[in-house]
Amino acid sequence: MAQENKFVYTPSKAATVGIHGPRDLPKLMKKAILLARVPISKFKVGVVGLTSKCKVFLGVNVEFEGVPLHHSIHGEQFLVTNLALNSVEEELTHIAVSNDGTKFGAPCGHCRQFYQELGTLPKVKILIQKPDEGKDEYMSIESLMPESFGPEYLLPKDYPLLLAHRDNKLVLLDTEEICSDSEKCPHLKCRALAAANKSYAPYSKSTSGVALKCDDKVYRGWYLESAAYNPSLGPVQAALVDFVARSGGKEFEDITEAVLVEKHDATTVIQEDTTRIFLKKIAPNCDFKVLRCKKP
Amino acid sequence: MAQENKFVYTPSKAATVGIHGPRDLPKLMKKAILLARVPISKFKVGVVGLTSKCKVFLGVNVEFEGVPLHHSIHGEQFLVTNLALNSVEEELTHIAVSNDGTKFGAPCGHCRQFYQELGTLPKVKILIQKPDEGKDEYMSIESLMPESFGPEYLLPKDYPLLLAHRDNKLVLLDTEEICSDSEKCPHLKCRALAAANKSYAPYSKSTSGVALKCDDKVYRGWYLESAAYNPSLGPVQAALVDFVARSGGKEFEDITEAVLVEKHDATTVIQEDTTRIFLKKIAPNCDFKVLRCKKP
Ligand SMILES: [Zn+2]
Ligand SMILES: [Zn+2]
Ligand SMILES: [Zn+2]
Ligand SMILES: [Zn+2]
Repeated sequence: MAQENKFVYTPSKAATVGIHGPRDLPKLMKKAILLARVPISKFKVGVVGLTSKCKVFLGVNVEFEGVPLHHSIHGEQFLVTNLALNSVEEELTHIAVSNDGTKFGAPCGHCRQFYQELGTLPKVKILIQKPDEGKDEYMSIESLMPESFGPEYLLPKDYPLLLAHRDNKLVLLDTEEICSDSEKCPHLKCRALAAANKSYAPYSKSTSGVALKCDDKVYRGWYLESAAYNPSLGPVQAALVDFVARSGGKEFEDITEAVLVEKHDATTVIQEDTTRIFLKKIAPNCDFKVLRCKKP
Repeated sequence: MAQENKFVYTPSKAATVGIHGPRDLPKLMKKAILLARVPISKFKVGVVGLTSKCKVFLGVNVEFEGVPLHHSIHGEQFLVTNLALNSVEEELTHIAVSNDGTKFGAPCGHCRQFYQELGTLPKVKILIQKPDEGKDEYMSIESLMPESFGPEYLLPKDYPLLLAHRDNKLVLLDTEEICSDSEKCPHLKCRALAAANKSYAPYSKSTSGVALKCDDKVYRGWYLESAAYNPSLGPVQAALVDFVARSGGKEFEDITEAVLVEKHDATTVIQEDTTRIFLKKIAPNCDFKVLRCKKP
């Protein structure tokens, strides 16, 4: 899957573009910035991240016309979602964020909060490089969020956090047939269920996943929750991260089918209505279906 | 209006409950916490704030069952919205935030970001009081958000920010009659238009306002935008802040009518669909109407 994903670099592919360590992340920035989708702000943000396995992931900001701004995906959230969707037991160690490829700044507060889900002592270091201020250093998320609030206040010690491997062991409510290799098959119901099974929703327990189809290719993503509630990333946004990363520049309106899988007994957080009207706005030709799942 | 609002204290009323300065804010905390509405988290948060005119404002967190978590209102956002709705040219100087009335901590990242809209050098000081850690100090929002991103990067210098007095000079698109004293009359269309005229939307320019009716009382609020997009507060959330503050404990489902006024030519940010499905969930008996406005 990595070879078709413009937003993921294996260590060897990263080396071919000159990235051998944290100091080299800026080298991919201009490429990242060009991939942003910002019809509202016209303010493109690129993010380049390095993992504990020396892979490089990209992120961009994505905005959606005609809906409230909380549907937007920040570049830093895109990057972590991209990492969650495409990695195994891998930690994010460094990121660089820029809107021009020359100055590198810190994430906004919304993203600093979202990054708390990466660990009780978030180890992510952020490049602050401002040539005209003489600044050039890596700062930790911790130092950018003194007196932070995060999962450590609400979850048991050692609870597996956002990037941990997870199997929620959900099955569809109706006895629909699901492929055994449900992470690779072409069926939206199988892929959306597999996504829901990786969803991180420790606060509401309302795990959910979305699969999208465009030109016979399937894209999927899962709901990622924040201890501070509002910065949580919806399952359709996560699936759109996969779409932006792997569709080779397709438009949202080219999406023809979507399936949301969510728990049949979810009462506190329900994605259905929001996902429906959101898709209707950004992908008017998309056929939207909701399937319910449960713990067996 | 102040006498019917449990969430606003004039200086003399504040004095009767022992509040004479910043150090006294904790005295109102237990009362604030009890007013929180948290069906999802059960995690009640109270916020007590002091202004430059020595008034005291309260805030609480408000959650809504059955919709995604980004609809939630944090206590710190509630407080600023309450201040915006009920004050004139007044600055927030100090806040205290707590979930138990004994420890006082810092806002989450989402709120630290939202508070950037209060000024390019936010002067708000936050009480950090942790008896078991020996901590007891007021810290500035600035020190809690090093390397911050805010309106100073996107707006002209001296642009009037969130709490500034504002008149967007919008009129309804259809030639409907609007009362001259449209901030006090009993008509939802007049009140929602007056609200839209105070809306702070410098980034998208999609100003909007909502008025709600419950038991012949009218509540209203306006859209408040954030430079980081996602932390923006929707117009219906702002109207619900007014409702929670002044309805004397009424439930959302007691709301019978709602009017949203938004710009007829808004394309980037449109509140209509989201507001409709949100109200349908939290106030199923509410009759919802949308009116368009324009610059004359
Ligand atoms: Zn951000
Ligand atoms: Zn299948
Ligand atoms: Zn908050
Ligand atoms: Zn009127």
